[in-house]
Amino acid sequence: MSTPDVPKKIEPRRLKGFRDYMPDLMEERSRYQNLIRSQAALSGFREIGTPALEYLETLLGQGSEETDKQVYRFEDHGGRKVGMRFDLTIPFARFVAENQGTLTFPFKRLQIGDVWRGENTQKGRYREFCQCDLDIIGVDSVSADVEILSCFYRILSQIDLGGFTMRLGNRVLLSSMIQTAFNGIDASGEQQALIALDKLDKIGRSGVVELLVTKIPAAATDSAERLLDVLTSKDSSGGTDQAKISAYIASNERAAKELERMQTILDVLADGAASKKGGKVILDCAIARGLGYYTGVVFETTLDALPGFGSISSGGRYDNLAERFTNRNLPGVGGSIGLDRLLAGLEELGKLGKSNHQMIFIAIATADALKSANHLAGELRNSGLACDIGLTVGKLGHQFKHADRLGCPFVITLGSDEVSSGTYSLKNMKSGEETKSLPQRDMTTYLKTLMASL
Amino acid sequence: MSTPDVPKKIEPRRLKGFRDYMPDLMEERSRYQNLIRSQAALSGFREIGTPALEYLETLLGQGSEETDKQVYRFEDHGGRKVGMRFDLTIPFARFVAENQGTLTFPFKRLQIGDVWRGENTQKGRYREFCQCDLDIIGVDSVSADVEILSCFYRILSQIDLGGFTMRLGNRVLLSSMIQTAFNGIDASGEQQALIALDKLDKIGRSGVVELLVTKIPAAATDSAERLLDVLTSKDSSGGTDQAKISAYIASNERAAKELERMQTILDVLADGAASKKGGKVILDCAIARGLGYYTGVVFETTLDALPGFGSISSGGRYDNLAERFTNRNLPGVGGSIGLDRLLAGLEELGKLGKSNHQMIFIAIATADALKSANHLAGELRNSGLACDIGLTVGKLGHQFKHADRLGCPFVITLGSDEVSSGTYSLKNMKSGEETKSLPQRDMTTYLKTLMASL
Repeated sequence: MSTPDVPKKIEPRRLKGFRDYMPDLMEERSRYQNLIRSQAALSGFREIGTPALEYLETLLGQGSEETDKQVYRFEDHGGRKVGMRFDLTIPFARFVAENQGTLTFPFKRLQIGDVWRGENTQKGRYREFCQCDLDIIGVDSVSADVEILSCFYRILSQIDLGGFTMRLGNRVLLSSMIQTAFNGIDASGEQQALIALDKLDKIGRSGVVELLVTKIPAAATDSAERLLDVLTSKDSSGGTDQAKISAYIASNERAAKELERMQTILDVLADGAASKKGGKVILDCAIARGLGYYTGVVFETTLDALPGFGSISSGGRYDNLAERFTNRNLPGVGGSIGLDRLLAGLEELGKLGKSNHQMIFIAIATADALKSANHLAGELRNSGLACDIGLTVGKLGHQFKHADRLGCPFVITLGSDEVSSGTYSLKNMKSGEETKSLPQRDMTTYLKTLMASL
Repeated sequence: MSTPDVPKKIEPRRLKGFRDYMPDLMEERSRYQNLIRSQAALSGFREIGTPALEYLETLLGQGSEETDKQVYRFEDHGGRKVGMRFDLTIPFARFVAENQGTLTFPFKRLQIGDVWRGENTQKGRYREFCQCDLDIIGVDSVSADVEILSCFYRILSQIDLGGFTMRLGNRVLLSSMIQTAFNGIDASGEQQALIALDKLDKIGRSGVVELLVTKIPAAATDSAERLLDVLTSKDSSGGTDQAKISAYIASNERAAKELERMQTILDVLADGAASKKGGKVILDCAIARGLGYYTGVVFETTLDALPGFGSISSGGRYDNLAERFTNRNLPGVGGSIGLDRLLAGLEELGKLGKSNHQMIFIAIATADALKSANHLAGELRNSGLACDIGLTVGKLGHQFKHADRLGCPFVITLGSDEVSSGTYSLKNMKSGEETKSLPQRDMTTYLKTLMASL
């Protein structure tokens, strides 16, 4: 016996690790995206966009084995192997190589977009999230380093983060220091050292020393201790003590040059930072930021009030963005603001405001007032006043209840009487006070004053 | 013999049907998205977001067989069958059903986002494109019909489209007219009639009459001719002649009620349209907009200067958005602006402006001017003046050439002399005129005046 053919309901459910963005959060997302857009435009960065999908060969083998695994991949309708982008850097490399004929170098790029990673979900981590990338491509200069860092600084200083710290390190300098510490160390030993140093925040100084000595055959405990002495030293600014680094690297010319470059960067940025509130820029020579890739300045940005929260903006200098695609040498410097990380940080700080989107509500008492009500709504909206309008004409109680749930501070009522007399009545939803027979003539000005007084 | 292991270059290429968005286009995309956002906010619509990926069962079986085929689909890392969204309506239905406990109905929703369709590419059609949807969900009223239509109207009238026409039809009215024409026609016959009428623009009146008579057994030529007489009739506004429809539907009460509703909608919208330039709103009873789905007012919007271009904004009323997911009855009315269609239209009209993003350029003559140059850049940017800065310090010729390629109208030069004397020199890139030793003191005010005079 077959059961009758009643269409079964489908359970409405999102995929694990994915979010619906509710209006208050969407408003904040747009607001910060537009803040980043306007600040980047003031600094001459131009926004580009690239597709969500790329050839799989474009995406793979560039991040770690871990990120390769996380790529959402499939065969498209034409049998092409494709993947969803998991960051904005690798598509940008493809973009630059493909469009190099039409771009003007140095090219200052902004890109804002969602990326997707099939990674294990954990608190505050999603499989879809938004990144905001800034890069200057086609030049290797201290001026470009300063420009990218100061743009990130400017953006972050516009946001009420309750204090943040941009920590600048340098990969060449750090490598030289590791060489100094463990004379004759090979490339794989250096990688082990970088991995160990990356864990300083997590396992502490003694843990790092232990790891160095265990993992690197050439490492003696006292050498490791001396390296950590310098890397964790602090001057009065809270940054790594430059005199100590200088003494440590002594005769290493390449390192001395990079240190000088860092000093210039810090000097110029300090000038900008001095005129702003909320952000510090300090030298933190222990910053490694992963293994390959970076070849000069690197940076991370932490929130002063949330020490364990991690970086909300980071990046660095790289030698050759598009070398997989082109012989053209394209050095660059860039970084990223993790918008959803930033918003999570603001939420934890209690600074993710509820929407302050306040509207006037126009209630329609009788069907013959529909036209007048829409006319008034049009006038208010033309003057820049947001307003909502009753959608259940005649049911005034329902409309007032809806206006109240929407948090509208004032409700205008229009019905036959008001239409014929050219008036309206106004209710203050907080005090409950109601004023009748107000003239429609000066309405916009009057309501603007009322709304501004809230 | 093995060949030496030289890493092979990968060809940098986009997937067919996908685009890179260059800066000028990105600027327009952001501009129109924000225009839609601000107009929607003025009317009390709230923006939401949903994931790019959904369970495949959520996506399939809702559009046509054609759209089902076009869905990019795969198994994710957890073995779930998933798909990329191909519109914003179906994810919205899932969103409303899943979040109905926290939403306030009627809920006015804005959603802006990319959608993906693996369809055959043709001129101006892409596999990734942006849609902007507005819907009012949870109420069936003429007031809601008016509100959604007037919001689309307001948005479009803010854009320099060189005239547009919103054509309003009504599915109940059209069905009644088909019933009147072909008495006793069954559901499949009615579908055939709708399909035929949908082709009016393409195959003309006589083609539609022929199709009707061929496909519908009950259809006599003179009945078909009389139906087309009414549907293609025009009153002085250019819309379908309401008196003719009224006479045609005569005693059909349901049709008469819908016609009255359409007259109210047109009357209210005409009032708004009268105070605006650029847009007409007319009745066009021949509009069918596909087969199922719509159950009341439907609309399309065409560009007056591009008759064959098709609709840039369309939608209509539907009975029950989320019936696959929930027993809750959620009628709604909504529509969509195809942002990429709109931009393509503006481009064809020659109204897609080149960016007017003009910047001042600060050239750095000597390394010791880096700090001053960045200080000035900071001042200009703080005052809202966009500026770029030299990234190849010392190479002045290179910097001027770059400023010229970026279209910067003025170049400031700073070097040792200027730093020590607190001055700068300014070159007008158009006239070639150069002024030396201008005081840095009043620079921002002076440059603002200069830029405003362009």
